[in-house]
Amino acid sequence: MKIAVDAVGGDFYPKNPIEGALAALSEFDDLSILLLGPEEQVRKELGNHDYPSERIQVVHAPEIVGMKESPAVAIKTKQESSIVVGMGLHKAGQVDGFVSAGNTGALLAASTFILGKLEGVHRPTIATFYPTIKGFRLLVDAGANLELKPDHAVQFARMAQVYSKVILNIEEPTVGLLNVGEEEEKGTDNLKLIHAALKPVSGFIGNVEGRDVLSGKADIYVCDGVVGNILLKFGETIPATLMKMLQTAVAKTTIDPDDVIQTQKILKAALAPFDYQRVGGIPFLGVNGVSIVGHGGSSPLAIKNMIKSAIDCVKHDINGQIVSSLN
Amino acid sequence: MKIAVDAVGGDFYPKNPIEGALAALSEFDDLSILLLGPEEQVRKELGNHDYPSERIQVVHAPEIVGMKESPAVAIKTKQESSIVVGMGLHKAGQVDGFVSAGNTGALLAASTFILGKLEGVHRPTIATFYPTIKGFRLLVDAGANLELKPDHAVQFARMAQVYSKVILNIEEPTVGLLNVGEEEEKGTDNLKLIHAALKPVSGFIGNVEGRDVLSGKADIYVCDGVVGNILLKFGETIPATLMKMLQTAVAKTTIDPDDVIQTQKILKAALAPFDYQRVGGIPFLGVNGVSIVGHGGSSPLAIKNMIKSAIDCVKHDINGQIVSSLN
Repeated sequence: MKIAVDAVGGDFYPKNPIEGALAALSEFDDLSILLLGPEEQVRKELGNHDYPSERIQVVHAPEIVGMKESPAVAIKTKQESSIVVGMGLHKAGQVDGFVSAGNTGALLAASTFILGKLEGVHRPTIATFYPTIKGFRLLVDAGANLELKPDHAVQFARMAQVYSKVILNIEEPTVGLLNVGEEEEKGTDNLKLIHAALKPVSGFIGNVEGRDVLSGKADIYVCDGVVGNILLKFGETIPATLMKMLQTAVAKTTIDPDDVIQTQKILKAALAPFDYQRVGGIPFLGVNGVSIVGHGGSSPLAIKNMIKSAIDCVKHDINGQIVSSLN
Repeated sequence: MKIAVDAVGGDFYPKNPIEGALAALSEFDDLSILLLGPEEQVRKELGNHDYPSERIQVVHAPEIVGMKESPAVAIKTKQESSIVVGMGLHKAGQVDGFVSAGNTGALLAASTFILGKLEGVHRPTIATFYPTIKGFRLLVDAGANLELKPDHAVQFARMAQVYSKVILNIEEPTVGLLNVGEEEEKGTDNLKLIHAALKPVSGFIGNVEGRDVLSGKADIYVCDGVVGNILLKFGETIPATLMKMLQTAVAKTTIDPDDVIQTQKILKAALAPFDYQRVGGIPFLGVNGVSIVGHGGSSPLAIKNMIKSAIDCVKHDINGQIVSSLN
């Protein structure tokens, strides 16, 4: 099992990607890793750690794609970036998967153009993990497809079902269409068409509402990329917002400081299911390869879990399963 | 000041609307209230309370619009419902405003068709209060207009600005367009057109993202009714979800029960800004009258605050201000 890791992706490179890669090597015996980035920079960081040198290979990729760069321009002009080089190695079959906490748009573009689409796939999609009271569930599309066509929605649902089975161990994942009401006739004309198209999908439970997300009513929430992106970014701010609100509330009262510390501990434990690090990254579904992207702020633990997701995708032949499910 | 209150709207009628109305009478000296509903039912509930009978009038409206009824059908067929009768009294100038915790769609339809639109208004809209770390802010549209046209978006923003000034006491409310990224070129073609149309609006701060909602980056978040409705219903589930997650976390630990009680108290205080009862209801903006709708589960306190909002709208001539702001 060989996974390429973007050593210069995200907000904390090369430290976090490299520490995450080394953690993955400790956890998975049959794993070896290619680290992509400017060689000197990568080797310097590696020098701070003990590591099994026979299982690590550094691939020189001198260019770095910034987090705010235009994806299309970056992919075209930075042919020697970790993203383009890494995806090329994956395309050439030299690695089994590619993991990065870098520029999501650039990674999606590179995945789509370099790896290509799986047989029968109209459009690749980004499915994101969403925390619910039942654990993480999937929200698809999370921003790759701002407008949602009915036949695309059906493919996104089916691909997310395969991913749910493999990565979240949900046997028969249910699918809900995010809408403004439960009734079939609710929503825009396009949402009604999507509803009709989703009906034949096994596990489709109909429309779900905003109130049904945190309760985990569906295993997969289907929506367009605008709704998905807004909900994704909104959800990420909930834990920190609550901690701030807690501080404000505490500042207004005369509570024993020990109780405050205790409260923060309990609240932190309560919010643990919202911690994205546990799942690490999100997949590009529908591309001809295994490409996992993480949050820019990914910690070493998050990177390690992204690598784990990539390994699981390879081991379970997720793309073979996706092709079967669509045809 | 005369406000009509739907005594049979919401999930807990007639108790909650009537208790809320009586609370408002205690708070506002110059107020009198018309209670609309089946007379016997209303008088029976009134009999459970002491109240200033000279300031309460019961108007017999024998029909009740159910929470799940089709708005268009309900308004057409239930001419003697509290909603249709109350809106008719408002149209006839016999009351200064109408307040209900009933079927939102039916209330919007009745407000639009019976009261009519204000001069120059393309479409009435529902603006909802949204809790942020800075206090309540407005999200518009919250579900009345599932698709958003650029010129409608501009009117929604301007109307919400007037409402923010009057009800939230924000002097120069800022406006953000909810989008998938901050940059001007982000989003669907329609979102780009809306962005361009909003540019001349004083206080427009550009695109905002899902992560900017809870932080209160803008005073007014403009979005289409699909996004608004999903975010509104999502937000409403946050406090209860957290309390459940807290219970789960607590059940897994061996914490002193006293600490748990303390924690719940602190968390409840922290979540108080999320309590919709504080603002009570949301306005239909752009109709030729004052029409405030509340959550189906509205408590007496929420109903009382809805009545307060209606009074504020009348006192500040909100509709006069809206017409000026649009022309």
